[in-house]
Amino acid sequence: MNVVYTHIRRADAAVVNALAHYGVATVHEAQGRRGLLGPTLRPIFPGARLAGPAVTVSLPPADNWMIHVAVEQCQAGDVLVVAPTSYSDAGYFGELLATSLAARGVRGLVIDAGVRDVGDLTRMGFPVWSKAVHAQGTVKETLGSVNVPVVCAGGLVDAGDVVIADDDGVCIVPRLQAAAVLQASEARELKEAGTRERLQQGELGLDIYDMREKLARRGLIFRRHPAAE
Amino acid sequence: MNVVYTHIRRADAAVVNALAHYGVATVHEAQGRRGLLGPTLRPIFPGARLAGPAVTVSLPPADNWMIHVAVEQCQAGDVLVVAPTSYSDAGYFGELLATSLAARGVRGLVIDAGVRDVGDLTRMGFPVWSKAVHAQGTVKETLGSVNVPVVCAGGLVDAGDVVIADDDGVCIVPRLQAAAVLQASEARELKEAGTRERLQQGELGLDIYDMREKLARRGLIFRRHPAAE
Amino acid sequence: MNVVYTHIRRADAAVVNALAHYGVATVHEAQGRRGLLGPTLRPIFPGARLAGPAVTVSLPPADNWMIHVAVEQCQAGDVLVVAPTSYSDAGYFGELLATSLAARGVRGLVIDAGVRDVGDLTRMGFPVWSKAVHAQGTVKETLGSVNVPVVCAGGLVDAGDVVIADDDGVCIVPRLQAAAVLQASEARELKEAGTRERLQQGELGLDIYDMREKLARRGLIFRRHPAAE
Amino acid sequence: MNVVYTHIRRADAAVVNALAHYGVATVHEAQGRRGLLGPTLRPIFPGARLAGPAVTVSLPPADNWMIHVAVEQCQAGDVLVVAPTSYSDAGYFGELLATSLAARGVRGLVIDAGVRDVGDLTRMGFPVWSKAVHAQGTVKETLGSVNVPVVCAGGLVDAGDVVIADDDGVCIVPRLQAAAVLQASEARELKEAGTRERLQQGELGLDIYDMREKLARRGLIFRRHPAAE
Amino acid sequence: MNVVYTHIRRADAAVVNALAHYGVATVHEAQGRRGLLGPTLRPIFPGARLAGPAVTVSLPPADNWMIHVAVEQCQAGDVLVVAPTSYSDAGYFGELLATSLAARGVRGLVIDAGVRDVGDLTRMGFPVWSKAVHAQGTVKETLGSVNVPVVCAGGLVDAGDVVIADDDGVCIVPRLQAAAVLQASEARELKEAGTRERLQQGELGLDIYDMREKLARRGLIFRRHPAAE
Amino acid sequence: MNVVYTHIRRADAAVVNALAHYGVATVHEAQGRRGLLGPTLRPIFPGARLAGPAVTVSLPPADNWMIHVAVEQCQAGDVLVVAPTSYSDAGYFGELLATSLAARGVRGLVIDAGVRDVGDLTRMGFPVWSKAVHAQGTVKETLGSVNVPVVCAGGLVDAGDVVIADDDGVCIVPRLQAAAVLQASEARELKEAGTRERLQQGELGLDIYDMREKLARRGLIFRRHPAAE
Repeated sequence: MNVVYTHIRRADAAVVNALAHYGVATVHEAQGRRGLLGPTLRPIFPGARLAGPAVTVSLPPADNWMIHVAVEQCQAGDVLVVAPTSYSDAGYFGELLATSLAARGVRGLVIDAGVRDVGDLTRMGFPVWSKAVHAQGTVKETLGSVNVPVVCAGGLVDAGDVVIADDDGVCIVPRLQAAAVLQASEARELKEAGTRERLQQGELGLDIYDMREKLARRGLIFRRHPAAE
Repeated sequence: MNVVYTHIRRADAAVVNALAHYGVATVHEAQGRRGLLGPTLRPIFPGARLAGPAVTVSLPPADNWMIHVAVEQCQAGDVLVVAPTSYSDAGYFGELLATSLAARGVRGLVIDAGVRDVGDLTRMGFPVWSKAVHAQGTVKETLGSVNVPVVCAGGLVDAGDVVIADDDGVCIVPRLQAAAVLQASEARELKEAGTRERLQQGELGLDIYDMREKLARRGLIFRRHPAAE
Repeated sequence: MNVVYTHIRRADAAVVNALAHYGVATVHEAQGRRGLLGPTLRPIFPGARLAGPAVTVSLPPADNWMIHVAVEQCQAGDVLVVAPTSYSDAGYFGELLATSLAARGVRGLVIDAGVRDVGDLTRMGFPVWSKAVHAQGTVKETLGSVNVPVVCAGGLVDAGDVVIADDDGVCIVPRLQAAAVLQASEARELKEAGTRERLQQGELGLDIYDMREKLARRGLIFRRHPAAE
Repeated sequence: MNVVYTHIRRADAAVVNALAHYGVATVHEAQGRRGLLGPTLRPIFPGARLAGPAVTVSLPPADNWMIHVAVEQCQAGDVLVVAPTSYSDAGYFGELLATSLAARGVRGLVIDAGVRDVGDLTRMGFPVWSKAVHAQGTVKETLGSVNVPVVCAGGLVDAGDVVIADDDGVCIVPRLQAAAVLQASEARELKEAGTRERLQQGELGLDIYDMREKLARRGLIFRRHPAAE
Repeated sequence: MNVVYTHIRRADAAVVNALAHYGVATVHEAQGRRGLLGPTLRPIFPGARLAGPAVTVSLPPADNWMIHVAVEQCQAGDVLVVAPTSYSDAGYFGELLATSLAARGVRGLVIDAGVRDVGDLTRMGFPVWSKAVHAQGTVKETLGSVNVPVVCAGGLVDAGDVVIADDDGVCIVPRLQAAAVLQASEARELKEAGTRERLQQGELGLDIYDMREKLARRGLIFRRHPAAE
Repeated sequence: MNVVYTHIRRADAAVVNALAHYGVATVHEAQGRRGLLGPTLRPIFPGARLAGPAVTVSLPPADNWMIHVAVEQCQAGDVLVVAPTSYSDAGYFGELLATSLAARGVRGLVIDAGVRDVGDLTRMGFPVWSKAVHAQGTVKETLGSVNVPVVCAGGLVDAGDVVIADDDGVCIVPRLQAAAVLQASEARELKEAGTRERLQQGELGLDIYDMREKLARRGLIFRRHPAAE
């Protein structure tokens, strides 16, 4: 059955926008090393970062019809997340679809497939995380679904979940955990600020994290290199 | 038999130069989704684009002798297209060969293998689309052929065909179809300009492309999300 | 047995710094096409280049404990070289470790695995050559070794060897051969300067390298293209 | 939080055993082309097939501790499904673990990673679908979870779901849909039996499936080949 | 334009059947190292070998409609060659299509994509060379073409060309060169028979092929190993 | 400099033959998880296993000249280990070379590249571990070296080292450690025999390895599944 779910619930906008201050690595750690999508997803230009609730699309290989359907379900601030049901690196998405999404205030695209017109998308500043850049066209023949749970680059994404993306890749925060993960991210950042300062002064992580005894207990040996003078 | 074909016929220069205004995605669509080389070919720096007639080179894995031979067959405006007869990601091409090609007015290189000196090539502004960046050297021991048809990244390229390349990859237009594809590209661009304007105003592709009825006929269902309030 | 070798001997600093003027491709050729690490290692931002003696780290998949141990063994000018004992693309290294290494004057990192915080690393100007960008965290549970010989991206690296890295990738010069390779690099660069000038004037490699006779002897045929007018 | 869920509910044994008569391709089609795990999972020997409820394991890269924990949660007839939280092709599983599972009546293993001792496993007739064969050992240092939902080779698997596996790969049937999918599989097989007989007689699919008119409407042209006599 | 070419000319049946005695490696060498398809194509079971004229199919990713169309164009002795226009590893082909082809006397399938029901295909003895085994279904929505030239696994195949396939992979002999390649294959096999006998007697290739002088001239040095007693 | 080292020292024959009783996984563990070559090396037919001292070959991509040279350096019981200096999956080795090696009593081949004639090799029972099966021919134009240390599939192999290979892949035991690794392998096997028996009786690894307390200390929680009745 192919269905478009409407009126999805989105993570709270204030929480989403606060999460945008933290990078993918921080958020991923803050929620217990969960939610990271695979490293095959790369940004089409460096420096982009975003946070926003997901509108999800499940569609057939090399058929982008459902993206056109999904545009209507997007609100300002959303991020479109697209996953084919079978491997495809075809170019599902280009400058016209980006124009349409940008006109609605959509913040960007995450797609486990290919995109095209990346020169135009870069000039527009419309960020995309994709598996490939590929001009290969798609058809509009077969239905899929919108706002169902999808597996994208090996991770699970549901409608309304928070998408965090930057140069490191993409991380998903489940809608109902967004507030807790925001708190954990703030706490982690605070703690790291202190560590950063000590490291800048030249202190060693070995001492800051108190690792020497545990290393010795596990049996690590220090020895002058045989080739040392 | 190893042969260098001389005096190849090239696509008309005016047509080639006009095609340069259209990107790979447009030209690929305009000629019926044919001619695209595989997405493994990536530009060594962003923003490059070119169009030019192909001088083709078929050569052994990890042996770049025939590139030296092919330089002599190149004219100003040409694009060199290089394909090994067996998989290789060795570095067939670097700054000295680029210097030689640039001195003859060659516009760039497409190679289904590796290149090196990419820092220098970037500073020179000599565009290359390759499968890999690799400093691994090659030898000059075994013959190949110049200006024979080659399969490059899964696509067929013949001498004199038009090579179109940009951030999306590389597309080949057969020499005898160049004028027709130019016309089709112009027509496609014109039509897209109108669509673009409507999308910018916020109109939906669903309406512009008149998709709603076809979607309903195929059985697409719209339903309030179970988690909606 | 897990061991940290201390007091390693490093290649002579003057030689290392002189080698830094030559790119990976030149050094790789100058030492007889040896020492190149595989093309899967890519810089996280373009334009970086460095030379420095290696501090090597052998560690388990997805466990970065030994990097913390290795920091203490690094001196100003060093380059950290990290190789897991089994395939991993996890994110072993991020901005805090880079801060610690930068505070000690370490010049960069080569890692046959993933890194994260690449936006921050780029802003810091801390160069990294890695197999992947991946936010996936690692643990600190299992020992490895520091300053033992490691196989990194298919090449052998020993403590104190010279690491050369630029946009083309990474090349290793064994410590005891560094002076000889420097001389060979200087000689090669000198010779290429002459060739470059002749190529810029439009002379052909076919003539400069005196290839025509050898090509004819091997049986290369020149023939007017059948489609020529 | 790392948790081992006990007392999971399994799909009905009679339904599971009846599903075992249908192959992966049939079941996958019968449930609307859902549930298929990725084609990177291959059987370690040809001809194996099984069906059984899943006991799921989420564990760290290159750490098989949680498999030892999961054995205790397995009953006769179960299938173990193992997914690392980050890419790993290490050898998590070998002959001793297989001996332990076989002693409990477990039917086989699906693992999005590597296995070893495949010669022994073949002699034992213990079927495994894995991403790699790799003797590389793992550690037992870091916790994971048992009987939580996991993403395995791009598909979602929950504890108690039915695992179907054969030479084509692996398909997952959600526990609550098992009875319905069994019915759909029986219906599909029945229909295919009739088609098979007609094809064996030499009838064409074009006629059996009544495709000729639709092809003509879409514009398919039949034309004598230019090279025909 | 989508077209089905009928009445193709096939390579002479006597020549095709004689070519079947020679393996892929021999034929590939005999025609000057041309015509080999890429090593990504693997047989679904060991020991199969065939020769036959190609019926070619160009079709969209994950859409097998045109295979049904192509069946009608096949005669006894033919080999079906299928190539998607964009990357796909979906399962285009299974036991029902094999039943239909077998009923017409078709000898096997070469497909640059996935197949399924490989257990059944093995039991039927219907040989297939494919890029993947994958149960993922396809649709029947978009046209392609039959008996046009296709690029399959990096090699060019035209209707009526001879397909040679065995455990080594797949090689294509152009229709008009089949007789000449047969002669060259016979000659090569004859010559190798003599060499084989000498090698079995313990003679060295170094002597049989008279390599010692050429090796010395190129500068090969023989030296007692430093670790020798 | 290209050199053939003669008169290499081999690991003791009695030790080598005793090591042949232990599989790759056992030997790899017994020597501290070192020496394993990468999982890209696969046997061309199942069930083969061998042990023997290595004769090593370093050669150019797609050039098998040095294999012909290396044959002369082989003795009965040896295993040939071949590594190209740059990536190649060409078919360096086929039935004639196997005939020559078999005539000298060589036990098998390990090659980080492609082989061909695998049907013939299987019939001959000549075992090969390779990265690819590929009929693509090679040339004989460029020198390499024999019995130098090589990096093969990511692992280091020196002349005279012991090669252990079976269905799990390939493991290298340094010549001087062979006797110690044999002892460790025997000890490991003995210990595993006891464990195996207890597992066959249904005892759990959790108890045999005494894991329960350590799991609890690390914080593992057992909890009734929410969906349990």
